[in-house]
Amino acid sequence: MGGDSPIVVLDSGLGGLTVARALRQTLPHEDILYFGDTARLPYGLKTRETVTGFVRQIIEYLRPFHPKHIVIACNTATALAMQTVKGEFADLSISGVIEPGARAAVEAAGAKNYPVIGILATEATIRSQAYERAIIRRRGRARLLLRPAPLLVPIIEDGRPEDDPLVRVALKQYLEPMVRRGMDVLVLGCTHYPIYKDLIQRMVGTRVKVIDSADRCAEDVEKRLRTYGLLRAGADVEKTGTMRCFVTDDSPRFMTLASRFMGEELDPPTWVSVEELYELGRRMAGSQPL
Amino acid sequence: MGGDSPIVVLDSGLGGLTVARALRQTLPHEDILYFGDTARLPYGLKTRETVTGFVRQIIEYLRPFHPKHIVIACNTATALAMQTVKGEFADLSISGVIEPGARAAVEAAGAKNYPVIGILATEATIRSQAYERAIIRRRGRARLLLRPAPLLVPIIEDGRPEDDPLVRVALKQYLEPMVRRGMDVLVLGCTHYPIYKDLIQRMVGTRVKVIDSADRCAEDVEKRLRTYGLLRAGADVEKTGTMRCFVTDDSPRFMTLASRFMGEELDPPTWVSVEELYELGRRMAGSQPL
Repeated sequence: MGGDSPIVVLDSGLGGLTVARALRQTLPHEDILYFGDTARLPYGLKTRETVTGFVRQIIEYLRPFHPKHIVIACNTATALAMQTVKGEFADLSISGVIEPGARAAVEAAGAKNYPVIGILATEATIRSQAYERAIIRRRGRARLLLRPAPLLVPIIEDGRPEDDPLVRVALKQYLEPMVRRGMDVLVLGCTHYPIYKDLIQRMVGTRVKVIDSADRCAEDVEKRLRTYGLLRAGADVEKTGTMRCFVTDDSPRFMTLASRFMGEELDPPTWVSVEELYELGRRMAGSQPL
Repeated sequence: MGGDSPIVVLDSGLGGLTVARALRQTLPHEDILYFGDTARLPYGLKTRETVTGFVRQIIEYLRPFHPKHIVIACNTATALAMQTVKGEFADLSISGVIEPGARAAVEAAGAKNYPVIGILATEATIRSQAYERAIIRRRGRARLLLRPAPLLVPIIEDGRPEDDPLVRVALKQYLEPMVRRGMDVLVLGCTHYPIYKDLIQRMVGTRVKVIDSADRCAEDVEKRLRTYGLLRAGADVEKTGTMRCFVTDDSPRFMTLASRFMGEELDPPTWVSVEELYELGRRMAGSQPL
């Protein structure tokens, strides 16, 4: 797990690619393994037990690649599963998207007394109260507007462009009540949402600071690797890092949309069957003392 | 598997409840076991292999209840998995939703030369060409309009009412091009869609005959059971049948929405973990000759 090991980015589907994209911009020499659990998405309506089981299997599957760091690039999975899998895989370095986003939200709120911080996220992320806790820990005097937006992930995974009337109606329904309540900061609390960041910024107005949890997450990973001296060094520092994708459902839609998310052409993904993942999860459970 | 055995209705989530509801109206004395694979929904964007694996596990799980009949009450699962699982479980009686819907569409088209038959369905159902084949086999001289509607299932599983502007925008986008092309018959090729049947009928106009695949599927099951003498008889014929639900993700949303779909209060569902399903699938594969 030295400097030449890959960084793992995992997500329920395409959303985490916004994190992978930001990572490739800040750390162009690093190799990235991307895992999209497309056979079981969306995670955002599922329970803690279900999502934790999924994430556990994915980490177990990717462990043989000796990742130097694993980013859970999905807010729902961070909210529901990160604490548990960090405990179970104590030898691996694992981080998520919520802490960096919450930190950035508090910074953006500045010195204002009782700033109004809005969180747009999946139902499961909102229900977990993970953003609430991460923000209140840093800044007790804030008003939080928590807004579950269960349809945004399906709309984005459907590849709808910004100027689609359906996208505008959905965003308007989710955002208008937040703007009306005097929101100062809006956290895009799902790594899918940055794909509509420009439109969202126009809809909420320039007065509202929009926090992109994908960008903040990538910055956080860079800082971690720098701190622990795990960035690529030596001759390899001149190489462009590779990017390899794994998916659980081998649909042509991944390739089409992934390039749009990444802003670069990708190699076809490797298909991993869910049966194989469950088999790993089962073997792993069997190897633990009861 | 006599007259007192239950009828199994299986689906990716809530959609199959429209079939269960129609069955309870036509066959009020029958016991129903409903299985909603809510941890892995939606099926509509997934591949044949993935969906067949899911359906195989669910049937294996429900087999100990000795069902007298199994309805695959999901168009995607019928299109992608039915042929395979009918072969694998040759001792069980299994039917789907596509044949009854296609038959009704052809009947509704009447004597018209080259009637225009529209199919609104998930992406996977459309890609499978199952409706196309089932209709063309009965009526070669027809024009088919095939319209994938990938966002309708997420919108319905979100519990959006008919008068929601988002529902109207989505349906308008999907239906308008079909109406413009002179559609005579519209098949609601997904068991979720009948929840918006009245609105859809208003949008396409009275000239278009709307076929509810859930209703037609329930009629088909009744006919099968009657033909094979498997309807409840004797003293039990006076009893009201029971309905028991199984789900793979134990979210409170199932209970809330299920009552709306069924038009009656339901008992809380039994939770079945996906790990248990994979374990069954694995054991089953192991017991077959290689």
